[in-house]
Amino acid sequence: ADIEAGKKKAAEVCASCHGVDGNSPAPNFPKIGGQPRTYLEKALKDYKTGERKDPIMAGMAAPLSEDDIENLAFYYSGQSGLYVK
Amino acid sequence: ADIEAGKKKAAEVCASCHGVDGNSPAPNFPKIGGQPRTYLEKALKDYKTGERKDPIMAGMAAPLSEDDIENLAFYYSGQSGLYVK
Repeated sequence: ADIEAGKKKAAEVCASCHGVDGNSPAPNFPKIGGQPRTYLEKALKDYKTGERKDPIMAGMAAPLSEDDIENLAFYYSGQSGLYVK
Repeated sequence: ADIEAGKKKAAEVCASCHGVDGNSPAPNFPKIGGQPRTYLEKALKDYKTGERKDPIMAGMAAPLSEDDIENLAFYYSGQSGLYVK
């Protein structure tokens, strides 16, 4: 997987809701930075196939290629994620 | 919602996979500590109704009451969550 490609795709597709670093500002969206890479890949694949259903994420995942998904999971799993309070 | 009841229920039901503080040790499970309370509530309710499908989480959410769900979401949303690297 290509982390720079993941970062670029993240900025284009994901960041407006999930933040560039995956630390979502919005209360209804999960924080995805620092989540396990395997978990993020599964989530995106499941949204793409419809196995996991969400009207927003279905639209976001539909155009992603398998490479895009791997790159995004690689990128976001390496971000800092949540604050430590 | 009752954070102490949430903590007790978390220790009984959730912690073996997600950790007491929601910082899951396992690579296939999401880290849930510090996620938005509204997001955690929605996830548990959707697993309970079958709106969101996962064989493990379906079994975990089925016996939870509405109060349990609110308490768990309150508790885990207040935990530290992911490391800041």
